[in-house]
Amino acid sequence: MYILVTNDDGIQSPGLLALRQALDTVAETVVVAPERNWSAASSARTLFDPLRVDPVTMADGREGFVCSGTPGDCVALALLGVLERKPDLVVSGINIGVNLGNDVSYSGTVAAAREGTTMGVPAIAVSLDGRKDADFKPAAAFAARLAKIAVEHKLTPQVVLNVNVPRSEIRGVVVTHLGRRTYRDELIVRHDPRGRPYYWLGGGEPEGDLTEGTDTAAVANGYISVTPVHFDLTNHHWLDALRGWQLDV
Amino acid sequence: MYILVTNDDGIQSPGLLALRQALDTVAETVVVAPERNWSAASSARTLFDPLRVDPVTMADGREGFVCSGTPGDCVALALLGVLERKPDLVVSGINIGVNLGNDVSYSGTVAAAREGTTMGVPAIAVSLDGRKDADFKPAAAFAARLAKIAVEHKLTPQVVLNVNVPRSEIRGVVVTHLGRRTYRDELIVRHDPRGRPYYWLGGGEPEGDLTEGTDTAAVANGYISVTPVHFDLTNHHWLDALRGWQLDV
Repeated sequence: MYILVTNDDGIQSPGLLALRQALDTVAETVVVAPERNWSAASSARTLFDPLRVDPVTMADGREGFVCSGTPGDCVALALLGVLERKPDLVVSGINIGVNLGNDVSYSGTVAAAREGTTMGVPAIAVSLDGRKDADFKPAAAFAARLAKIAVEHKLTPQVVLNVNVPRSEIRGVVVTHLGRRTYRDELIVRHDPRGRPYYWLGGGEPEGDLTEGTDTAAVANGYISVTPVHFDLTNHHWLDALRGWQLDV
Repeated sequence: MYILVTNDDGIQSPGLLALRQALDTVAETVVVAPERNWSAASSARTLFDPLRVDPVTMADGREGFVCSGTPGDCVALALLGVLERKPDLVVSGINIGVNLGNDVSYSGTVAAAREGTTMGVPAIAVSLDGRKDADFKPAAAFAARLAKIAVEHKLTPQVVLNVNVPRSEIRGVVVTHLGRRTYRDELIVRHDPRGRPYYWLGGGEPEGDLTEGTDTAAVANGYISVTPVHFDLTNHHWLDALRGWQLDV
């Protein structure tokens, strides 16, 4: 098994290192990761600038590649020819912080995995409910186990497996659907030394839906959540309603 | 009716101007648009930098606001307090180039609309199969008509209406589901004056699915396509399959 490992927190992230080290126990791995933090990059891609990919030595002395683009760019470059052969799996993470419910659309971690599936390679995204100094080992060990199981079960690129790991002791693993995250964004206005306003998008942690069966509830209750996500965005329920509107020109 | 108008091609785009002018005939409008082109920005949001919003005079002498952030940032800032009152609708576009099928996930135009719905405001995204020198008037006129119909029918923020307008004579309007776009991305390697490689993500126009009922087929056949898209990404078909895997730790 040959696995492309990437993330959206950047090549220096301890989450990436822990993930790579755990995946090394079940597969041959290669790292292509962004040079900086791209949290909330979503599926952004670079169209108007050239990109660099350079060899880099990671904190444990192993080699990797650092890329000047977005998480999506990293995977696209890797799969379009920077790697000499096609990997069996893309694993993205371990993100510092959860990617639950609505977060999935904003997440660069999930977007990197998703780029794998768009190009025909099955993919897993892994996020941890913790900060930079968290213990990534339990999440990394689960990711390695899941990678092995996924390849054995011939996971297809129809879905990304979106994994979130709780910060506390792990009570088990559940398959979930996405819950709702209610954002509490607020506008913070400040003034520069010349008196002109500038803005921060701030606000508290989003609140998670605690409905049974959701990813938000699972992680809140101490379970690892695994959600199959896809990117077919048609809302089929709305087709008939819209057909009742007089739209013709 | 009060409409927030935005786009992802930037404040200078002729598509934005045409859209605003057409919407002016059915509503009060306000423009908050990015200062530069953010094509393929997806739902990217700015977390680590402050943002500016400044008044600007558009090409027709009307006032607007230009924002230093992504398309999603523009809408978030507007709705969180830069606008004094909440709009009834967000309309994003007119994008220079289609946003069909898989494009929807990468599109900054759709992401801006989507940000409206996340914050409780119904939204429409409009894209034209044409270039910068295209005639935006037919697409703009349809957008204005649809905005009016949508508000009359009490469009909810459960969906974004994703509209694509063909470049040739318009044969009618159809409600569609997203088709498949097959990308033909390729890696282009060049060398800088110091001999070091750099990369462009290039490739031809994606191919569109011509299956009846898809947005890709509709636009190829000369119809305006209206697709209800949502962002509930769970793949429900996969839940049972995954529950059959031995995932527990």
